[in-house]
Amino acid sequence: MSATPEDFLAKNAKVDEKSVQPFPNSRKIYVEGSMPGVRVPMREISLADTPTDLGGEKNPPIYVYDTSGPYTDPDVVIDVRKGLAPMRDEWTTRRNDTEQLSGLSSEYGVSRREDTGLDHLRFDHKRTPIRAKAGKNVSQLYYARQGIITEEMEYIAIRENMKLEEARAQGRLDTQHAGESYGAAIPAIITPEFVRDEVARGRAVIPANINHPEVEPMIIGRNFLVKINANIGNSALGSSIDEEVEKMTWSTRWGADTVMDLSTGKNIHETREWIIRNSSVPIGTVPIYQALEKVNGVPEDLTWEIFRDTLIEQAEQGVDYFTIHAGLLLRHVPLTVKRVTGIVSRGGSIMAKWCLAHHKENFLYTNFDKICEIMTAYDVVFSLGDGLRPGSIADANDEAQFGELEALGELTKIAWKYDAQVLIEGPGHVPMHMIKENMDKQLDCCGEAPFYTLGPLTTDIAPGYDHITSGIGAAMIGWYGTAMLCYVTPKEHLGLPNKDDVKEGIITYKIAAHAADLAKGHPGSQIRDDAMSKARFEFRWTDQFAIALDPDRAMAYHDETMPKDAHKVAHFCSMCGPKFCSMKITQEVREYANKNGFDKIPMVNAAAGGSSKVDAEDVMAKGMQEKSAEFKDAGSEIYAKV
Amino acid sequence: MSATPEDFLAKNAKVDEKSVQPFPNSRKIYVEGSMPGVRVPMREISLADTPTDLGGEKNPPIYVYDTSGPYTDPDVVIDVRKGLAPMRDEWTTRRNDTEQLSGLSSEYGVSRREDTGLDHLRFDHKRTPIRAKAGKNVSQLYYARQGIITEEMEYIAIRENMKLEEARAQGRLDTQHAGESYGAAIPAIITPEFVRDEVARGRAVIPANINHPEVEPMIIGRNFLVKINANIGNSALGSSIDEEVEKMTWSTRWGADTVMDLSTGKNIHETREWIIRNSSVPIGTVPIYQALEKVNGVPEDLTWEIFRDTLIEQAEQGVDYFTIHAGLLLRHVPLTVKRVTGIVSRGGSIMAKWCLAHHKENFLYTNFDKICEIMTAYDVVFSLGDGLRPGSIADANDEAQFGELEALGELTKIAWKYDAQVLIEGPGHVPMHMIKENMDKQLDCCGEAPFYTLGPLTTDIAPGYDHITSGIGAAMIGWYGTAMLCYVTPKEHLGLPNKDDVKEGIITYKIAAHAADLAKGHPGSQIRDDAMSKARFEFRWTDQFAIALDPDRAMAYHDETMPKDAHKVAHFCSMCGPKFCSMKITQEVREYANKNGFDKIPMVNAAAGGSSKVDAEDVMAKGMQEKSAEFKDAGSEIYAKV
Repeated sequence: MSATPEDFLAKNAKVDEKSVQPFPNSRKIYVEGSMPGVRVPMREISLADTPTDLGGEKNPPIYVYDTSGPYTDPDVVIDVRKGLAPMRDEWTTRRNDTEQLSGLSSEYGVSRREDTGLDHLRFDHKRTPIRAKAGKNVSQLYYARQGIITEEMEYIAIRENMKLEEARAQGRLDTQHAGESYGAAIPAIITPEFVRDEVARGRAVIPANINHPEVEPMIIGRNFLVKINANIGNSALGSSIDEEVEKMTWSTRWGADTVMDLSTGKNIHETREWIIRNSSVPIGTVPIYQALEKVNGVPEDLTWEIFRDTLIEQAEQGVDYFTIHAGLLLRHVPLTVKRVTGIVSRGGSIMAKWCLAHHKENFLYTNFDKICEIMTAYDVVFSLGDGLRPGSIADANDEAQFGELEALGELTKIAWKYDAQVLIEGPGHVPMHMIKENMDKQLDCCGEAPFYTLGPLTTDIAPGYDHITSGIGAAMIGWYGTAMLCYVTPKEHLGLPNKDDVKEGIITYKIAAHAADLAKGHPGSQIRDDAMSKARFEFRWTDQFAIALDPDRAMAYHDETMPKDAHKVAHFCSMCGPKFCSMKITQEVREYANKNGFDKIPMVNAAAGGSSKVDAEDVMAKGMQEKSAEFKDAGSEIYAKV
Repeated sequence: MSATPEDFLAKNAKVDEKSVQPFPNSRKIYVEGSMPGVRVPMREISLADTPTDLGGEKNPPIYVYDTSGPYTDPDVVIDVRKGLAPMRDEWTTRRNDTEQLSGLSSEYGVSRREDTGLDHLRFDHKRTPIRAKAGKNVSQLYYARQGIITEEMEYIAIRENMKLEEARAQGRLDTQHAGESYGAAIPAIITPEFVRDEVARGRAVIPANINHPEVEPMIIGRNFLVKINANIGNSALGSSIDEEVEKMTWSTRWGADTVMDLSTGKNIHETREWIIRNSSVPIGTVPIYQALEKVNGVPEDLTWEIFRDTLIEQAEQGVDYFTIHAGLLLRHVPLTVKRVTGIVSRGGSIMAKWCLAHHKENFLYTNFDKICEIMTAYDVVFSLGDGLRPGSIADANDEAQFGELEALGELTKIAWKYDAQVLIEGPGHVPMHMIKENMDKQLDCCGEAPFYTLGPLTTDIAPGYDHITSGIGAAMIGWYGTAMLCYVTPKEHLGLPNKDDVKEGIITYKIAAHAADLAKGHPGSQIRDDAMSKARFEFRWTDQFAIALDPDRAMAYHDETMPKDAHKVAHFCSMCGPKFCSMKITQEVREYANKNGFDKIPMVNAAAGGSSKVDAEDVMAKGMQEKSAEFKDAGSEIYAKV
């Protein structure tokens, strides 16, 4: 038990090599803001020139949103024992509204720190937490309402744009496909002032605890890119600290915008410290899980005091958002009794049991004002939990679920009085035709506070594939306006996800989020699709891999059926073989058009102009004979031979 | 080259053991119709009783639609050398409108049959084809319009209902979640007369070539269950006959409602014969692929005569539907020149090249009447191909695509004049917000002929995951009214799918189709979801596996993190462990409710009845104190200890 952190790490908490490899043809770039220390990372993907016989033009690089943090920056030395650089500390210090504490404020935190038996698993953390000075409020919502543009806001504006001005200058913005955004209003360029305004309205949140200076600021709101969350965390039966830290870096590599640590097993406190100190994305937790551990798993024994101490313990570690099941009220519990699957939220079932056992109102509800004070002293975002979300298609959109949603709406108003930031959690299991009702009702009840949903799963019959059953619902609800999608892995309902499952869940949810961005018409979101399509058409295989959400898999699948090196640059793929490649034939058609000029054929203008079919056919007959003769003169060969 | 079929098979074409295993806790049953020989297979899944402490009730079996054919019937001896039983021959014979031919009508077919060099790979087929007698029409649409209910129609009515009356009698039909069906009108019970009427209107098709007597009749139409198609087929670079036969049985095992053989390599004719003789689902092809092989891959050399001979060759083998790219007109080709990805349909690009080379109108269009005559002589369904479907988000819903769709509408009317059945093929790559426009325009242009779409993919940036990018679009367009969804595998855009990829694609599309059935409110579609949810809530793990679309994966994933045998029957799972299991806590809440009667608490009625919150809170306060005292008297223990 006297092993040092070094021993622990030597054995365990190394960053997996796979998590720090730069992506193919990519480099990390930083865009500087106007405020000191604002340096926004992006991934630049370089693209090859178009092959000479297809035009030979240069293809400008594309810029993609980068959640992978310093891990993919070859210039940064990663040492998980030291954690990431506390970039935001200087911003917080400049604001002069916080104070350095002399130690931890939580009793439990102190007891863990003093327990030498835990030395071998402790993060070697010298820093003491900070807190708002008495009478001060350090939430981003507070600043926004004061009209203050914070460094976080400028950072986010730059990050969301992904060098959009550059793409616009290059004429790479799609105009044809203006999306349908169901009431959201995404501007052509995100400005820091727009960020501030959205935060001030409560329509977006910035999860950035002042005790998590390592975080790269990001925003959750329906007028921004749709975000995704990945859950990690051990259970009584599963994994250890190093596995969880590894899952975190792995998750952010593949695109997790936030990570929730849902640990319920041993050493939750220590696990969390390792995770936060090494995380460049916001970390969320469900504090009731740890509170329950403290009372040995007996919900009836939970008290406000224990919960309060847990909130402070976690807030001082730097947790960025807390799921709090304060909207589950005693009167809702009976509404769940006739359900097919009752209460499926862990937090919800814990609170329901507490309420029943004491026959008192939920203590999270009765102490909500006190919780608001804690949240704004560290700037922790409320994620108001949906303890009564449906656990099956049968229970979707029922009285219990919507009753709780209404209560969450009331709580949102209270939180906003304190300038506390609020997210609203949503379902769950919902058939497709009932999804939009969830979104509409949430916007209405909760004053447009950002919605954060789990899926929803659109059918219950496919355990082992619930990333897909839920990916469908996630894409749709994202389009309708949900700001963040909580991922579901293939192991949902069956077991604990391993690293492969985590990645599968994340990529599925990146697809859902991106499909939603396209459908909402997020400016510039189509640049990556267009770059992929052009690379595909031009058989630039390496570019296709680099642009793909998962270059490793794309490359592996391609190489599996195209074993010869020659085929990697072939102008066809193994699906159709050389003769049947439609892309290749189209290139030949295009080549032919370039040589012969379609626009000179009368029929074309007729067809494009929508003249009557009969007229068009007349001119066509003429044009056809003419052209056919030309073609035969040219040797009946239209294959590209340039 | 003198090897016998036996030699070939001894080495190769055995049915994979995995394809003939019955599913867990399942048996094949047959429901008899009123007409001779109508015996409809279904899969009956037996369920365990609810555990005693949760009520101990019996759970009636559920019945699911079964595409797996005789392969999963332990009473049927499978011999791929003999093929499946020609069940429908007696029905066709009774109609007395067909004649047995003396040999093959296709020149190519004859030349292949006479080539002794092919003996080693030939299916040992003694039967000669049949054809409509002169002046007769044998299409299901013809019969339907004559008011005739065929055996196929009765079969389908029974099949679509899946013993719905029984479920209704057991009170297992969901009424809460009546779906939104966008103009479709699904009756509470599918009758043979309803089937006939839908076919007569052209709103549904029954692909059942008179030369494919082995087929188990099924229907494609938006007032029926959403169907899925799996593509198989070798290419110049890939696989062999036995692999394709195996992929077919594998596909139907997992739920493919039809299979398209898209082979473009060697021995297409022989491969197809093996597939059809062993297939209980309709087989579709794209005849232009084989026609192109016959002219050595040079599109310009294609002629109507070669194509016609190919249609007859395949129709006499028993192909149930043909993709025919007759709507791609010369005037559409120039509209594709500015596209990002041009023409991505293989058939479309072949025809475009032919049109350009000859500067003549598409010969499939100019000979369309003649094609109709062939189709109705064997009852082959038109699947009017979308040769100009978009191959990228950038090209979605463009002039070229919709121009062709309008032409397909014209062709539909012509086909219907001949009483030929018609499906319309659709895209492709379409962002979410542009999907519905496709469906609306298709219904409008094509007189409600069933739509058959490939995906659509909702983003282009995830090669390796295009089953998911497209599964999202497929679920949505299925909800909007698409009758059949053509699957996409994870290898799309990258390579040829192997068996695992085929299965992954099929399960993804079964999810999409089922999610659409739920959203449309297809009667009884929720029974399977509800059975799963109840099994889940009651920790009946074995039942969950049996109900799952993929029992093998569900079981494997579960066992991976629950290694101890004890845990397989545990009342919790590895995700949360025993203390945190929300399902378990809910059961305790329910147990508590059963013992103590929530309905006696005034607050409950107040909440349910929607009285004002203040009133409800007053009564709550009283009720709470009372109940709390009771609870403490009972020993503060509400865990189920029955």
